[in-house]
Amino acid sequence: MNQSQNSPTHVRDGKPAMVDVADKPVTRRTATAEAVVELGTEIMGLLENNDIRGPKGPVFQTAIIAGTMAAKSTGTLIPFCHPLPVEGCDFQIDTTAHGVVIRCEVTTTGKTGVEMEAMTGASVAALTIYDMAKAMNKAIIISSVRLLSKTGGKSGDYHAAS
Amino acid sequence: MNQSQNSPTHVRDGKPAMVDVADKPVTRRTATAEAVVELGTEIMGLLENNDIRGPKGPVFQTAIIAGTMAAKSTGTLIPFCHPLPVEGCDFQIDTTAHGVVIRCEVTTTGKTGVEMEAMTGASVAALTIYDMAKAMNKAIIISSVRLLSKTGGKSGDYHAAS
Amino acid sequence: MNQSQNSPTHVRDGKPAMVDVADKPVTRRTATAEAVVELGTEIMGLLENNDIRGPKGPVFQTAIIAGTMAAKSTGTLIPFCHPLPVEGCDFQIDTTAHGVVIRCEVTTTGKTGVEMEAMTGASVAALTIYDMAKAMNKAIIISSVRLLSKTGGKSGDYHAAS
Amino acid sequence: MNQSQNSPTHVRDGKPAMVDVADKPVTRRTATAEAVVELGTEIMGLLENNDIRGPKGPVFQTAIIAGTMAAKSTGTLIPFCHPLPVEGCDFQIDTTAHGVVIRCEVTTTGKTGVEMEAMTGASVAALTIYDMAKAMNKAIIISSVRLLSKTGGKSGDYHAAS
Amino acid sequence: MNQSQNSPTHVRDGKPAMVDVADKPVTRRTATAEAVVELGTEIMGLLENNDIRGPKGPVFQTAIIAGTMAAKSTGTLIPFCHPLPVEGCDFQIDTTAHGVVIRCEVTTTGKTGVEMEAMTGASVAALTIYDMAKAMNKAIIISSVRLLSKTGGKSGDYHAAS
Amino acid sequence: MNQSQNSPTHVRDGKPAMVDVADKPVTRRTATAEAVVELGTEIMGLLENNDIRGPKGPVFQTAIIAGTMAAKSTGTLIPFCHPLPVEGCDFQIDTTAHGVVIRCEVTTTGKTGVEMEAMTGASVAALTIYDMAKAMNKAIIISSVRLLSKTGGKSGDYHAAS
Repeated sequence: MNQSQNSPTHVRDGKPAMVDVADKPVTRRTATAEAVVELGTEIMGLLENNDIRGPKGPVFQTAIIAGTMAAKSTGTLIPFCHPLPVEGCDFQIDTTAHGVVIRCEVTTTGKTGVEMEAMTGASVAALTIYDMAKAMNKAIIISSVRLLSKTGGKSGDYHAAS
Repeated sequence: MNQSQNSPTHVRDGKPAMVDVADKPVTRRTATAEAVVELGTEIMGLLENNDIRGPKGPVFQTAIIAGTMAAKSTGTLIPFCHPLPVEGCDFQIDTTAHGVVIRCEVTTTGKTGVEMEAMTGASVAALTIYDMAKAMNKAIIISSVRLLSKTGGKSGDYHAAS
Repeated sequence: MNQSQNSPTHVRDGKPAMVDVADKPVTRRTATAEAVVELGTEIMGLLENNDIRGPKGPVFQTAIIAGTMAAKSTGTLIPFCHPLPVEGCDFQIDTTAHGVVIRCEVTTTGKTGVEMEAMTGASVAALTIYDMAKAMNKAIIISSVRLLSKTGGKSGDYHAAS
Repeated sequence: MNQSQNSPTHVRDGKPAMVDVADKPVTRRTATAEAVVELGTEIMGLLENNDIRGPKGPVFQTAIIAGTMAAKSTGTLIPFCHPLPVEGCDFQIDTTAHGVVIRCEVTTTGKTGVEMEAMTGASVAALTIYDMAKAMNKAIIISSVRLLSKTGGKSGDYHAAS
Repeated sequence: MNQSQNSPTHVRDGKPAMVDVADKPVTRRTATAEAVVELGTEIMGLLENNDIRGPKGPVFQTAIIAGTMAAKSTGTLIPFCHPLPVEGCDFQIDTTAHGVVIRCEVTTTGKTGVEMEAMTGASVAALTIYDMAKAMNKAIIISSVRLLSKTGGKSGDYHAAS
Repeated sequence: MNQSQNSPTHVRDGKPAMVDVADKPVTRRTATAEAVVELGTEIMGLLENNDIRGPKGPVFQTAIIAGTMAAKSTGTLIPFCHPLPVEGCDFQIDTTAHGVVIRCEVTTTGKTGVEMEAMTGASVAALTIYDMAKAMNKAIIISSVRLLSKTGGKSGDYHAAS
């Protein structure tokens, strides 16, 4: 067993290494991650007035597409992440008075989980919104990227506290 | 002029579009971004005891390498980001009692800034640390990704408030 | 069921999205696509005289290799296309008096079809031939890219009319 | 001089090869390519009724984003194409009764032209529309991909006949 | 059967082609490759004195990470190589008086072997060490890249003579 | 100055890092690397009899194309390698009684050299030949990958001893 609960995975004998998952069973797995982007009330107002708020506007479309493509490329971005066939990738973007909340849910059937795919998808969607809005406000902050839940696999399901 | 201060760039006539930078002057540009990862005091203690705290440990090395490679690939990840030749990319990772603070500084000589390269480099370094530590604690949060400063270009220098 | 016959797939609730295929059965699938490149009689004559007509010449070799590599990368090029393990990819290039006809047949064993892999492989092979011939004639046209046939999957087999 | 008007470029001494452009001057260059997708009157009607016709709908947004990203990646798709920094990439999509006409205009400042970037951008945008509509009609055809115009560079400007 | 023992695979009817593996059984497969880098006694001494010899030093870490990422990307680098899900990738780097010996072991469960993944991983790790040391000695040679062993698949196991 | 002659570049303060080249002058640079593949006399004989020896055969064409594409992607494969616009990439493949000698010459106009591009191009061409021949002989060895020469840049020209 290469992986224990009280040492970082991907480190064996002091050197970085991929965890060998060849002997793990193939099961259905899902993971949902969330990224919050604090755009500020001014931008949120402008977004509303310009009719580009909501899921049909080009800013959010672009973020969803970039996030989906990044989720599929997670295995080439994160060094010791196993390449996985993403079978489903769904985004939901909600707005608040001062920013947006991005949720990315990824599904696969494989030997290892898709937490990194969901985290990467949400992160890149957030970076894309930042990119499109940064000319209006350089103080935009991605204030949270975290795992909301995961299902499937030996380590069991997980649901974030709130 | 394709870009104004009170509408999202990358949107023209309601459709997404790249900003044309062909007529911009080539100048030296830098940008520094920061990502904070809340690993929790337990992991930070384990990291210390296992001698993998600090810039020589494999966790941080892996994060720096992943972040550097992602910074170089920013133009392929963010849809309307211009491809830029990254000429320098430097990481600094500091530790606190409950997490790590990643700083990524990118340098180029080009027609557009490297804010996205720095933001992407810091984000992917943070995701890589998350990936290597997530087996120990699923509640890890990337609690902040933001631009610290930029220099060069027509819009002038920027330094975050704190 | 996410997909119906009278609305575009990849659009749910007005936002773009990947179709979830996690519950689909794994079956053998093939698809063949065709691309036609109108090079003009002059180039076709030159190609013959220079001994680079036919499957051994470097123009066609290059097109086949570029098309094969593009077919394998389809999932990173087309935003909502599922990544699939291409198990076979075969090209045939025939010549006419005024151009070439490229056929690309792709095989996989998976949950979704390989139409996009075949279409992308044929398109990139055609673009590669265009690239190598464009200095001789800028009026070259890729006059057709279409699906010739597909087998496998729930929606049944398909064969183009002629 | 590696390139002549009556032999394919990229072939030297019978083997494929990149054209050496190191000694060419750096100039501003543009190229516009067009791809036509015959979707059929039925899909065009459905697209209108579903309010996803026109540049704001997710189908076209997705195509524009995929095309832009592909234009930036042209140098990795086409074997002997020189990597170029795309400085501008603009799409226009017009509808007819039976299909769509995609125009992709690319700008750079470099040693070689951007015809391939425009052709690749238009092709991948067309493939993306095909991907999103193919469940409704497998007989969709990309009926034309061609260069409309180019400017800049030693070989002079070019404008297609019609 | 597309593949025989006395002709190159990937060539059919004089044109290059991918071998169709769709009908092959899915089995567990491993392959180990070795790359030897002759850095010279001077660099090896400097590496020791600078405390960056051994598996914890940044040179070797970087090589391991680059090699792992390259092993995962083998299917996009080698034209007719089938894309495979790398399930394990483990590196060992040993030092001699005048250089380093890199061993890369790759594991998968698939229809075709992982020899190319192991060979590519070892090669890119060696190139990365070369890159980091070349300012000190331009005469560094990668003196050997070879397959040490493979297991699984119809053609049987293989172990190099010495 | 980040780089000295007696410590590895890419290591600063014990952590890996990209060398900052922003202040270096832009000059013309070339590099030539060589890779030798020992295929064995049997394969070399078969290659001759099958008319696929020499620069026109599909094995060598495929190797040249794969090597060219890899040379262009060097900056994404080697972690601290600067992305460079490859302006020329030329391969020569010679045969001996027992193997092949690959030469890859790369040209650019930039702030840093193209040694890694030439080394990577030669390596991937060699791996591609190995891939196409390995079914005939698993004992094939890439017996040498080395820099033959470089020109341009502050550190001066270099020519290998023999």
